[in-house]
Amino acid sequence: MQRVVVLMSGGLDSATVLAMAQAAGRAVHTLTLSYGQRHMAEIEAARRIAQDAKVDSHREIGVDLSAIGSSALTDVTIPVPEARNQEAVQNREVPVTYVPARNTIMLSVALALAESIGAKEIWCGVNAVDYSGYPDCRPEFIRAFEDLARIATRAGIQGDRILIKAPLIRMSKSEIIKAGTGLGVDYSLTVSCYQATLSGTACGRCEACSMRRLGFEGAGLPDPTRY
Amino acid sequence: MQRVVVLMSGGLDSATVLAMAQAAGRAVHTLTLSYGQRHMAEIEAARRIAQDAKVDSHREIGVDLSAIGSSALTDVTIPVPEARNQEAVQNREVPVTYVPARNTIMLSVALALAESIGAKEIWCGVNAVDYSGYPDCRPEFIRAFEDLARIATRAGIQGDRILIKAPLIRMSKSEIIKAGTGLGVDYSLTVSCYQATLSGTACGRCEACSMRRLGFEGAGLPDPTRY
Repeated sequence: MQRVVVLMSGGLDSATVLAMAQAAGRAVHTLTLSYGQRHMAEIEAARRIAQDAKVDSHREIGVDLSAIGSSALTDVTIPVPEARNQEAVQNREVPVTYVPARNTIMLSVALALAESIGAKEIWCGVNAVDYSGYPDCRPEFIRAFEDLARIATRAGIQGDRILIKAPLIRMSKSEIIKAGTGLGVDYSLTVSCYQATLSGTACGRCEACSMRRLGFEGAGLPDPTRY
Repeated sequence: MQRVVVLMSGGLDSATVLAMAQAAGRAVHTLTLSYGQRHMAEIEAARRIAQDAKVDSHREIGVDLSAIGSSALTDVTIPVPEARNQEAVQNREVPVTYVPARNTIMLSVALALAESIGAKEIWCGVNAVDYSGYPDCRPEFIRAFEDLARIATRAGIQGDRILIKAPLIRMSKSEIIKAGTGLGVDYSLTVSCYQATLSGTACGRCEACSMRRLGFEGAGLPDPTRY
């Protein structure tokens, strides 16, 4: 079985990616980054999802981005906004919940793990549809990181590429939920809320909650989120 | 004054880069990554060098790569080798002290800081001459990371590039030492040894010690290292 790294945030998207990687016959090694995010419940959720999926290994690595700040997700002095208005979304404004270089850092650590365990693919839940304002959620970002990975690693020097798989990148939240439900994903284990309580109760008002609820509505499936 | 991030390992190379950035009139914000390395004395050295240089700010961020392992620098079960023989160097073998994706991770965190504080350059001591076996010490790696940075950041989306400055990349250790000495760098503050004691005493036998000693010899300057 081909060995892969799956980046697990504990949210709906990465739980779906994990199921997709296993459905594709991959031996999955999950990696969760604790980056000083407000929503620590996600870390706990990631652990439960990984256990439930019986992954080959699960690792948590801390990168304390709270020393950097400037995002509402890591800096407690910046309030988490309620859902953005459509004008801001259409103007492709970068939201205040954007964590500078977060996906670059996450993929870099995943790359270190992939190289260390001999994995040839990194799977991640990057999505360009809902997160249209995040620069590091675009297909061109994934391609640029693959180019970097080819040059940055021992595997790359030896002609062996490490690929970045982002199967959700062009899917809507409803499509993701339908696909995951078809693969048996238990979405009650996942946490999306930007300010979930430690026990995983969602606020129901932030942008992540709003997108999640609309996703279940659009999919015509019951929303198992605890609000 | 233009604001820049300088990656500081506490070694000879990054101390020289810091001096070069200040000589070029930059306002310097230093960043040291603690990645579970054996040579913790480097972290302490980086702090002293930053203080001595009166930088605008100094940050230490932990990324615990010991959970990943597979390098002699982070995995205590892998012995640090003595200097490699010339054959291994000429065959461009990747040494056991190579930390998977280390420079990719370091530059990613530096990119997050740069974006957060509005810095337009990241300076680092990457060197292709002495570290010829490390994939992420080559000029093509620096270019690939610059390409990624352009695509991965809010600044990049807005047409504002963040540049990676690697002024030492083609310099020999002797040339670096001569340049730094000309800029007043106090090399007695720096630690290069892969297995330095906590107080910064060098082993004198590992590859890093060997390259450093030969560098001072080649420069015709006294070696202030404490062995």
